[in-house]
Amino acid sequence: MADGDHRVVVIGGGFGGLRAVRQLASAPVQITLVDRRNFHLFQPLSYQVATGALPPSEVAYPLRALFKRDRNVTVLLADVTGVDLEARRVALADVSAGETPPDPLEYDTLIVAAGSSYSYFGHEEWREHAAEVKSLESAVTVRSRLLSAFERAEMIDDREERRAQLTFVVVGGGPTGVEMAGQIAELARDTLRGDFRRIDPTGARVLLVETADRLLTTFPESLSAKAARSLERIGVTPTLNRTVVGMDAESVTLQAPDGSSERIAARTVVWAAGVRASGLAGMLGEAAGADIDRAGRVTIEPDLTLPGHPEVMVLGDMAAVRKPEGGVQQLPGVAPVAIQQGSYAGRSVRRRLRGETVSPFRYVDKGNVATIGRGRAVAEVGFLRLSGLPAWLVWFGVHIFYLIGFQNRLLVLMEWTFSFITHGRSSRLIVDTPAEHEPPT
Amino acid sequence: MADGDHRVVVIGGGFGGLRAVRQLASAPVQITLVDRRNFHLFQPLSYQVATGALPPSEVAYPLRALFKRDRNVTVLLADVTGVDLEARRVALADVSAGETPPDPLEYDTLIVAAGSSYSYFGHEEWREHAAEVKSLESAVTVRSRLLSAFERAEMIDDREERRAQLTFVVVGGGPTGVEMAGQIAELARDTLRGDFRRIDPTGARVLLVETADRLLTTFPESLSAKAARSLERIGVTPTLNRTVVGMDAESVTLQAPDGSSERIAARTVVWAAGVRASGLAGMLGEAAGADIDRAGRVTIEPDLTLPGHPEVMVLGDMAAVRKPEGGVQQLPGVAPVAIQQGSYAGRSVRRRLRGETVSPFRYVDKGNVATIGRGRAVAEVGFLRLSGLPAWLVWFGVHIFYLIGFQNRLLVLMEWTFSFITHGRSSRLIVDTPAEHEPPT
Repeated sequence: MADGDHRVVVIGGGFGGLRAVRQLASAPVQITLVDRRNFHLFQPLSYQVATGALPPSEVAYPLRALFKRDRNVTVLLADVTGVDLEARRVALADVSAGETPPDPLEYDTLIVAAGSSYSYFGHEEWREHAAEVKSLESAVTVRSRLLSAFERAEMIDDREERRAQLTFVVVGGGPTGVEMAGQIAELARDTLRGDFRRIDPTGARVLLVETADRLLTTFPESLSAKAARSLERIGVTPTLNRTVVGMDAESVTLQAPDGSSERIAARTVVWAAGVRASGLAGMLGEAAGADIDRAGRVTIEPDLTLPGHPEVMVLGDMAAVRKPEGGVQQLPGVAPVAIQQGSYAGRSVRRRLRGETVSPFRYVDKGNVATIGRGRAVAEVGFLRLSGLPAWLVWFGVHIFYLIGFQNRLLVLMEWTFSFITHGRSSRLIVDTPAEHEPPT
Repeated sequence: MADGDHRVVVIGGGFGGLRAVRQLASAPVQITLVDRRNFHLFQPLSYQVATGALPPSEVAYPLRALFKRDRNVTVLLADVTGVDLEARRVALADVSAGETPPDPLEYDTLIVAAGSSYSYFGHEEWREHAAEVKSLESAVTVRSRLLSAFERAEMIDDREERRAQLTFVVVGGGPTGVEMAGQIAELARDTLRGDFRRIDPTGARVLLVETADRLLTTFPESLSAKAARSLERIGVTPTLNRTVVGMDAESVTLQAPDGSSERIAARTVVWAAGVRASGLAGMLGEAAGADIDRAGRVTIEPDLTLPGHPEVMVLGDMAAVRKPEGGVQQLPGVAPVAIQQGSYAGRSVRRRLRGETVSPFRYVDKGNVATIGRGRAVAEVGFLRLSGLPAWLVWFGVHIFYLIGFQNRLLVLMEWTFSFITHGRSSRLIVDTPAEHEPPT
């Protein structure tokens, strides 16, 4: 076989999996990339879909198009239902129910990068009330709910109901929560200003709820404070030291450290707190006898392999990486970690095929950035701590640079330029609520 | 009141309603535009969404944004449940179920432009198998089904099943059907060429089924023949003199004029035949004692008013317009008719407010164009009959010119330029099948 017959199966077309395939595409191996979606989602921008700043197609790129020219890469749209470590086989299911399951995939090397999802603190029932912005569909759901809340407020005469429609609660004060809250405030204050005749959208309340005593706990305290002030200025109310203890279709209940609780009437809640690794992490950990931590991540060796299984590597949000000197590395669940690990995994397979040794994975922290709004952000780059416009320019440059695909980059750049000038949002479509799928009468 | 107190209610934000509001926005009237969607859909391009050539946001434009600066225009997102012609009131329902209905709207002039939908020849049960491309959601559903069919074919080993997955049936040989069939063929032959490893997408079969003995029956015969040859060249099989008599999840049954029938195994069917006016047409016709034709349209006076109700005008696909000299005008269900009627309705309200008389509506037919594929179309402009690239350039120019909103025009132009050069389609996202809404494990 011209391309060698070492079979690599990669599970997950996120940042980690994509980079691993890219690294291996020129190697003498046969690669199969399995994902349940037919596109790579640029997750750091999915919150912009949720507020109508970008359309879905500009933050998602078809996987097949990415590897069209790599003849040794096969893309399969399927669900992974299990991994047989002994037989070295991955069991698949068709993503559209009711079909006969496809044949399992055999591998010589397996790279697992299936990511994570929100955990809802164990309250699965909250999921229907508080959509998240990690998946593309969910981000579109959030967009429809946000915009519909303003529409309903315009229709309703009852003052209390109107206020509940115009109250937005974002749960989780990490970068995604901060970005979401900032965008909702800008949507209400800038984009929708003047759009309505009966309500004043600028009167909308946006609460950003965080359990800790500051926002952005992974940033230095000075930047947390700056972010909070910046958010307040554009109309977000940071609500610190509060934990969500209850939720229904009409309200959110928050608890203070002294045990007292408050019920807030709000029709739209966005979830951005508490991530849990893909179930595959637990499955692999159990099969290999490896540790599984509280966030569901499997503990792996310093070279990213599953203990006892040098032919299986685990990446990104699913993995807790052991330090060579003992203990576990504390790596954040962000794209740069997955990208570096994916790249490492690809190189590592190549080296081993050539019989060379592999040194442990080391994460190079290039910095941290969270955007708040138009021209506002906080960033930590080495010793530099930036805020305001300089931080925002860093954010802008990094995101445009990393966007997959030349066309997407250009289109996003255009959209952003337009919105920056006009304060507009071109993707304000309310779609997909069940009622709207009914045939028109 | 500065803007006068004549209240105009416009039902429907399609081409007709939009043009009527635009005409009246500078008049001394108070306008309320009611639509069940928060956007205007550029329907002549929704088939491009169905094949991934354009993302939804580039063929849809938020209604509020269009009338942001017109302080006498109020936009309401609601369902119209009835019209009380005596009391001059429109009853509304909230588009999201379970809310208390909003107060009815009172009018002095009512303009009804609620459009039409596909009728499925009275077989409502076919709707779930054969999605259409008239609404944005349905176009997105078609896109997911088309792309998923190729994905499933790539996974399946069974030869017969693979062939069924790669068989696409388009029902209806009018402009929409021709455009859809052409786009599916180009998707398979150009865009997806090289994307798969196990199947050859260029082997896909695309059948275009038409009951009549030629395609594009509203065009001259010579252009119908040219369109058919053009379609064959890019891989579409025009299937004439055939009527759909049965459909299920796995197949379509076609009947020939001699009564014989054939069952075709096809997993993806697109519907583009048989339009029926919005139910409001029948409701109004009954209340006013006006004729309702077989397509559900209400017969109205030469000045577009409902018989006996000069304060109610009906436009576009819902209306059959009586000729001043007797009989009914035969107007096609296309955008130019709705646009000219909307414009006429707006002018007519202004004239009447000034106490001037109104002459009957006259449709100015500027021509007819149907696109087949990249650089291929047929067009009839006055005495000119064009085909190939010249016709395609006419189509291109007309569509870019009429696209609502400066940004959309530019973005669509960019997308088209990109696809023309690269044969790519950037919006190939499979979203929204129920199975994919489940939380990841």
